[in-house]
Amino acid sequence: MKAAQTRRTKIVRLADGKRMESKSDILAVEEPLEIRVRGRSIAITMRTPCHDDELAAGFLLTEGILRKRGDMISIAPCAQSDSPENTLNVFLAPSVEVDFEKLTRHVFASSSCGLCGKASIDAVHQHFPPVKSNLRISAKILSQLPDKMCAAQKSFAQTGGLHAAAIFDSRGKLLFLREDVGRHNAVDKVVGCGFLKNKLPFASHILLVSGRASFEIMQKALAARIAIVAAISAPSSLAVEFARESGQSLVGFLRGGSMNIYSNPERIFPEKPSPRKSR
Amino acid sequence: MKAAQTRRTKIVRLADGKRMESKSDILAVEEPLEIRVRGRSIAITMRTPCHDDELAAGFLLTEGILRKRGDMISIAPCAQSDSPENTLNVFLAPSVEVDFEKLTRHVFASSSCGLCGKASIDAVHQHFPPVKSNLRISAKILSQLPDKMCAAQKSFAQTGGLHAAAIFDSRGKLLFLREDVGRHNAVDKVVGCGFLKNKLPFASHILLVSGRASFEIMQKALAARIAIVAAISAPSSLAVEFARESGQSLVGFLRGGSMNIYSNPERIFPEKPSPRKSR
Repeated sequence: MKAAQTRRTKIVRLADGKRMESKSDILAVEEPLEIRVRGRSIAITMRTPCHDDELAAGFLLTEGILRKRGDMISIAPCAQSDSPENTLNVFLAPSVEVDFEKLTRHVFASSSCGLCGKASIDAVHQHFPPVKSNLRISAKILSQLPDKMCAAQKSFAQTGGLHAAAIFDSRGKLLFLREDVGRHNAVDKVVGCGFLKNKLPFASHILLVSGRASFEIMQKALAARIAIVAAISAPSSLAVEFARESGQSLVGFLRGGSMNIYSNPERIFPEKPSPRKSR
Repeated sequence: MKAAQTRRTKIVRLADGKRMESKSDILAVEEPLEIRVRGRSIAITMRTPCHDDELAAGFLLTEGILRKRGDMISIAPCAQSDSPENTLNVFLAPSVEVDFEKLTRHVFASSSCGLCGKASIDAVHQHFPPVKSNLRISAKILSQLPDKMCAAQKSFAQTGGLHAAAIFDSRGKLLFLREDVGRHNAVDKVVGCGFLKNKLPFASHILLVSGRASFEIMQKALAARIAIVAAISAPSSLAVEFARESGQSLVGFLRGGSMNIYSNPERIFPEKPSPRKSR
């Protein structure tokens, strides 16, 4: 049975200071998910149930544990848990090395080489080198992606409470879209989806996120070898620095036909000037 | 010297598919902060520099380590670190017990009593019992808070990339406002601000957050004993469940004079019907 991503609840609505009749509202579901590897709990994340196997796979891939499809044998609910639906065992191939000490949400930031933006970027590059990609996309196609994502966001339309991440091909076709209360989770899910379907690396793909672009979003995109990342909202300083040092094109404020390009703008080509009509 | 919350960068801007002249843009700064307690690293968070002492204090308070002002002696940059500006030592009173095993971002979710929303709520209540509060506020005053917060959000106006959290008194006066690339950090900062100024508990105060309300936001509010939490955007299912079991009033979609009240609506009173004019 597919887990519910939304749930109905009773609310009181006030408009212009006046109480409306009691009505019901639809909420985005948030529940904890525990990810276990070799019998040990390695992460607990608050997520929207659904596509949990993708979330677990994407998390392990973007944290540098999984490198190729063969590194993972299977994913299954933990039968010993009180809440098997919220506890996943990820079974890795025996050859995969796991450094449990380092395996936390902030494995890269806590690198021993220092604690600043530059050191965090360098630490990621030890696992995931910068991308080299000849991918090109027209500004026109890029501008159409937000509407395509929005049209496919079923749960957001109901709740207004879910982040989305979507993978497009270079012609602007939507391949995968996932939603979650956590924006990192949404990215883990689309990356994990690619991993489980053996579609990685996303070398000629574009990642679009519904919110802001942070360091961690860019790091996850790099793990999936994504060269173009676009966000509906603003990037942070470290996201921009990361993108520049990682060979990624980072686009922000992709709205209403315009965009800001923060790094490697050569991958996005503007429209050609319309040819003059000769008579 | 006050750390910069924003930074300028060069961008390429495209509008309607056409390249505009090269311009510069202002970014929200994101840098890692490591929090150390008794010589051990207990958390690394990606944050916007500024008010780091408040962030560290608020984090420790909302994680249940600090209970009263006297539990903390001082906070200081770690001189041994390569990046003292990104590494803080929090010096606790000797009497304060610290369970380092449990002290993670998800201390409450990883409770041994199970892994589901209900278990997560119960685990929080072991540290922070539900609030009992006679606080009342008019819908009219509540409706004015977003504009007040927005007017005070200097960095957001520049970058579009910062979350905000604000504490208001029961008459709608803005007391503290903090901004951060991380929404949990913004809440930790306002709570930590109250802690350092010895203004906790926030028993007759309202917390307003610029984004969505999740389980973790509600948990942090409860740690500060806040009975009314309002969000500009949507709450999650677990935030609503948490609020109902914690005696908190949770308001969502507080925009344009209207709002949804998800729990304990009796604290928010609608406008009285205007008295009929008698002649």
